Amino acid sequence: MSVTLVGAGPGDPGLITVRGLERLRTCDAVVYDRLVSEELVDEAPADALRICRDGLTQEQVDRLLVELGRDLDVVRLKGGDPFVFGRGSEELEALRDAGVAYDVVPGISSIAAVPAAAWIPVTHRGLSDRVTIATAHAADGSEPDYETLAGTGGTLVLFMGLARLPALAAGLIEAGLPADTPAAIVSRGTLPEQEVVSGPLAELPALAADLPGPALVVVGEVVALAASLAPLATLSA
Amino acid sequence: MSVTLVGAGPGDPGLITVRGLERLRTCDAVVYDRLVSEELVDEAPADALRICRDGLTQEQVDRLLVELGRDLDVVRLKGGDPFVFGRGSEELEALRDAGVAYDVVPGISSIAAVPAAAWIPVTHRGLSDRVTIATAHAADGSEPDYETLAGTGGTLVLFMGLARLPALAAGLIEAGLPADTPAAIVSRGTLPEQEVVSGPLAELPALAADLPGPALVVVGEVVALAASLAPLATLSA
Repeated sequence: MSVTLVGAGPGDPGLITVRGLERLRTCDAVVYDRLVSEELVDEAPADALRICRDGLTQEQVDRLLVELGRDLDVVRLKGGDPFVFGRGSEELEALRDAGVAYDVVPGISSIAAVPAAAWIPVTHRGLSDRVTIATAHAADGSEPDYETLAGTGGTLVLFMGLARLPALAAGLIEAGLPADTPAAIVSRGTLPEQEVVSGPLAELPALAADLPGPALVVVGEVVALAASLAPLATLSA
Repeated sequence: MSVTLVGAGPGDPGLITVRGLERLRTCDAVVYDRLVSEELVDEAPADALRICRDGLTQEQVDRLLVELGRDLDVVRLKGGDPFVFGRGSEELEALRDAGVAYDVVPGISSIAAVPAAAWIPVTHRGLSDRVTIATAHAADGSEPDYETLAGTGGTLVLFMGLARLPALAAGLIEAGLPADTPAAIVSRGTLPEQEVVSGPLAELPALAADLPGPALVVVGEVVALAASLAPLATLSA
């Protein structure tokens, strides 16, 4: 009887880990995020309880996990990695406070896998030896600290809603990032529906206006490598 | 006939992806990093060519991949994720220049999975909504930019040799990070031999003096969560 937080990876069901899939195939119940692939949820045993967390508040999810975890082996299947903007540690705190045992199986975070699916390496010798990952809104709901983000001197990877893209681009440029810094936005990364738009940071909001979410924004010189790495890639999207 | 860069994950062989393992099980040749688990290399078909890259320069690895990739299905099995400090994009450039087809299957990078194995979430609401990943030496071999690293205001995750830890701690503190910032060093993360040492940043070099590499350093308030998250974890190390 325990709850295992399992990272489902960035979208493509083949990118779950071997251990994560094992846990999923032997669980009594799975509580999954809306964006997790249906194919993965189907890997749970036929008689397992399947609950989508869509429509539940975080507090309700926490309570659900505590209730189920007292009597069942539960997999909490989360998009990406549970500890990278996944609120996984909050769920663990709720389990700990209730005395329910838990474990974590990490997942492939979108932070590098989604740029990779668009042939953007987040690091590249001589171009970028530093990556900063952030959300497009601060923890307290305010605007992000554009000064700091513009000054990191490495690749920026930003989780965000597309509606915030104009403010983000303007904020970064005002804080000193050149308007022609290479930038890309990857929508539904690693899935068959993946779309990539790239261009100078200043033009990205106009170029990406019609993309569906969820999306990841990458800003930095490494974005320019994609054009030369994509052509000979035969097997992936 | 192609070369697939496959991320082997942070060490624990159960953390390779389902797709990565499939590619490995059907390849004609595998070229692997020294730190990749033997159990994974053994997953290649019995008659596959197995070559450890240890002792080869990067240029020799590039040439080897080009030669093998012309006639065989090659898996280039790399620790962590190929595009996160993995020099994967350099290998792709060599293949591209030689006209050899390639693909990438991402892996779990150490950047979040190794802290997770020590019960440190790199993000946590209210504590850290930003993560900066860097190496402890700049791309040109010089000292890292401590001013920028100390000013990110989020979690720092640093890949490094332990010999550089005293310089790193001193540099970050001199650049303004409080000497009592929670910090941890995780040696051989996710493996049975994993060791974790944590303490105030100023004391970390003395505390960690005898740890074996490879190691990952985590600096930030999230490190303090580990003490409260570890106790009820029953299944993992």
